[in-house]
Amino acid sequence: MVKARRLAVLDLGSGTFRLVLYAYEPQRLYRLLDELREPVALGEGLSRGVIAPGALERGGKALRAFASFLQAVGPDEVVTLATSAVRDAENGHLVFEEAQRTGLAPRLLSGEEEARLGVLAVANALPLHEALVVDQGGGSAQVSLMRERRFVFGKALPLGALRLTEGFLPSDPPGKGEVKALEKEVARQLKALPLERGLPLVALGGNLRAIARLHQRRRSYPLDLLHGYYLPKEGVEALYQDLLALPWRARAGLPGIQPDRARTLPATLVFLRVLLRETGAMGLWVSGVGIREGVLFTRLLPEPHLLQDPRAFALENLFLHYPFAEAHREQVKALAQALFQGLVPLHGYGEEEGRLLLEAAHLHDIGMHIGYHEHHKHGAYLVLSGPLFGLTHREQALLALLVRYHRRGNPDPGPFRSLLGRGDGKRLKRLAALLRLAEMLERTRSGRVEGVRVELGERVRLLLQAPEDPWVERLEAEKQEGLFREAFGVGLEVVWEG
Amino acid sequence: MVKARRLAVLDLGSGTFRLVLYAYEPQRLYRLLDELREPVALGEGLSRGVIAPGALERGGKALRAFASFLQAVGPDEVVTLATSAVRDAENGHLVFEEAQRTGLAPRLLSGEEEARLGVLAVANALPLHEALVVDQGGGSAQVSLMRERRFVFGKALPLGALRLTEGFLPSDPPGKGEVKALEKEVARQLKALPLERGLPLVALGGNLRAIARLHQRRRSYPLDLLHGYYLPKEGVEALYQDLLALPWRARAGLPGIQPDRARTLPATLVFLRVLLRETGAMGLWVSGVGIREGVLFTRLLPEPHLLQDPRAFALENLFLHYPFAEAHREQVKALAQALFQGLVPLHGYGEEEGRLLLEAAHLHDIGMHIGYHEHHKHGAYLVLSGPLFGLTHREQALLALLVRYHRRGNPDPGPFRSLLGRGDGKRLKRLAALLRLAEMLERTRSGRVEGVRVELGERVRLLLQAPEDPWVERLEAEKQEGLFREAFGVGLEVVWEG
Repeated sequence: MVKARRLAVLDLGSGTFRLVLYAYEPQRLYRLLDELREPVALGEGLSRGVIAPGALERGGKALRAFASFLQAVGPDEVVTLATSAVRDAENGHLVFEEAQRTGLAPRLLSGEEEARLGVLAVANALPLHEALVVDQGGGSAQVSLMRERRFVFGKALPLGALRLTEGFLPSDPPGKGEVKALEKEVARQLKALPLERGLPLVALGGNLRAIARLHQRRRSYPLDLLHGYYLPKEGVEALYQDLLALPWRARAGLPGIQPDRARTLPATLVFLRVLLRETGAMGLWVSGVGIREGVLFTRLLPEPHLLQDPRAFALENLFLHYPFAEAHREQVKALAQALFQGLVPLHGYGEEEGRLLLEAAHLHDIGMHIGYHEHHKHGAYLVLSGPLFGLTHREQALLALLVRYHRRGNPDPGPFRSLLGRGDGKRLKRLAALLRLAEMLERTRSGRVEGVRVELGERVRLLLQAPEDPWVERLEAEKQEGLFREAFGVGLEVVWEG
Repeated sequence: MVKARRLAVLDLGSGTFRLVLYAYEPQRLYRLLDELREPVALGEGLSRGVIAPGALERGGKALRAFASFLQAVGPDEVVTLATSAVRDAENGHLVFEEAQRTGLAPRLLSGEEEARLGVLAVANALPLHEALVVDQGGGSAQVSLMRERRFVFGKALPLGALRLTEGFLPSDPPGKGEVKALEKEVARQLKALPLERGLPLVALGGNLRAIARLHQRRRSYPLDLLHGYYLPKEGVEALYQDLLALPWRARAGLPGIQPDRARTLPATLVFLRVLLRETGAMGLWVSGVGIREGVLFTRLLPEPHLLQDPRAFALENLFLHYPFAEAHREQVKALAQALFQGLVPLHGYGEEEGRLLLEAAHLHDIGMHIGYHEHHKHGAYLVLSGPLFGLTHREQALLALLVRYHRRGNPDPGPFRSLLGRGDGKRLKRLAALLRLAEMLERTRSGRVEGVRVELGERVRLLLQAPEDPWVERLEAEKQEGLFREAFGVGLEVVWEG
């Protein structure tokens, strides 16, 4: 990260002010370095068209803290974004001016610009080409259409969580009539948009993420990852039924929820429920990235700021954090590829499995960064330590499991079973067997097994190409016969072909 | 690791042949790079004074594999050790010669040399100054006395697990009479040693580790660490009662046990039980290191090959794997130290707690290596990812918990409760509160809060020394008032003193 540039993005949202600090190397990689979050609730008063004096004060305090942080840290670039509250309130200019006084150069985003940045983030970070992208902030909610990973249209509606709470749900807990009126209003505004039914729905922003987190807790979700989570419609319905009538104090006591989110939770639940109904979506994909990452992508990537292959980028980004023995990695990939191809008649797998196997080979040794003992487990931990763009949670879990079992153990989904689909147990066993064989054929990390040919017969014969008999590799590969037989139903023989 | 030397140690044991590959920088750090293990059972036949032909063949095969590995890997130095089977068997020279033919230069260790290397490993890796060190291999068992971390005496007795199994427990499961005879023989040999009662007992070697692993599984031990584990006498007794009468097949099916260990498990259990009785020890400390690490220490450190402070070495070794913002680390340590000192009247803690706090400050950010989000959790994972010399498991768990809670969350022992002692919950809360305050006073990682003074009164006042008002640091420190009050029972005020 020597040539890395440091970019700070300040997002002066209507609910939350945030400062994020990234380091990045253009077109290569990026990392989040730091984050400050202030639950300013700037949108307080927004339903009456003005920002309340207390909110202005909280905003000023947060701005001074951010400015103080920037002064100490000195990033190469600072981008300061102001959104709905500043845009829509009569006295929004006061915040703008206050920001300028602290030395910041804020940029007021239009609703469409805000929507564009959100779509850009989604296009790079989720494995979807088409989607309805919804970003509910404190003041507004942006609803956008993405096609072929491009922004088609987007509109900011006055449906932010704070604004709706203030304007429609003043009682604690919300009254039935209040909820009805809010539902009607959300439906009315959504109906005015040209919404196509049946598209995947993507949810952005802290309010919707808070709902997803609650749902994960309920089902003891086995991953500590929110980005890429799929929250089905029934899940939203259950949360709605259980939580809407709770008073604020009880909501704030729910594990994993921040106090400011607890306040606006009912409005977000109502909004989300109507949204699902109006769009006919069966659930929603949660995005952990939004407009701040949108800004980052405009710096990281040239126009149109799209990663060619988000999945490949994510995996390479991960590898680059834990670089280890690149030549060995490439050789294991080549050997795994040869084994996979040679055994197609036995497994019948296609492109999807082939890709997963090569990706696991790419990452199999990153755990060596932590230590040799248990490096297979450490590697799995690292694969699951953060979001991987372009992969579903199922794929990410399979990848982690393949890394986990690349050295030892009987491949088993364990706690991740609930994430997997039909045939994935078998898939895991077979791909793990191939990866482990490839690893054992490269046991000395020296590349001396230059290639492998597969002969199918009563037993599978692996013919090793090497200048001299590669003893260790041959013995260690032979030891995998048990796993191989379990995976493919036939025996294994490993011979030196010369 | 640019200037690192690579050392391979081959340990041609009577039960297992092992090759380990280390990288090290003299007096600075080391890492394990690779390990090969072959369950050769060379000691087969040893009870009749000769190594069996099959065992010789297995040994030769393993030697060729190791030589093949070394050829591919090319370490800077290779040390090959032969122990009991080669030493004691009539035809032991055959193994020696076979090793020479494959290009190795084996060194035949005397029983005392073997014992010395084991004691050296223990002296550097466990928080003990005096101990009885017992290393049960396949052919012999070394029993040594360590005083002030120095070897006093040691003797190799013909009490190896394989030798005892062959000689005394031929039936499957072992017969009652067989067990009795074995107990008598072990007692007889131990009684001949000048064993002092009441010293801590340290167990080395794979056979004894296998017993400890079984015990950990039974009680769902919350750490994935064997080194430093304390196995109480009652635990050995329970395993003895439950497992001794099981046939081999059932023993081999126990989770976490290797087939070759399953074979010799009864003999090791009998040996251990008699050992505990004869030494009057209340249990045993498990060492994950042994003669191979002993050899490493002779290269890593000048005579007498002792780490001055194993605990400091282990922590620095860990930090060096995940270096991050050294200046920030030092500043957090200084601030934590000042807070700790200033609050002595409130907590009354002494050297032990002070050291732990500074160690946690030393390591608090190593999780940043993995990523900013959840870096407190990643850091805790890394602290627990391997053994830390010189720390008990309790101390290691406390350290991990302090790192875990240095940023957020309500400090709680969680799954590690069973490792902690009286008052540790409170200790954790208080030290975590101090560490978090120190971290927040260094929130910008810029060192601009140069110092802190503590004023005790109805509330605790922290007076910050800084050239200008450090806004972020002050605000973020103030946010910790809730935790502080919970930990110390008084309120908190944070002011800029100038």
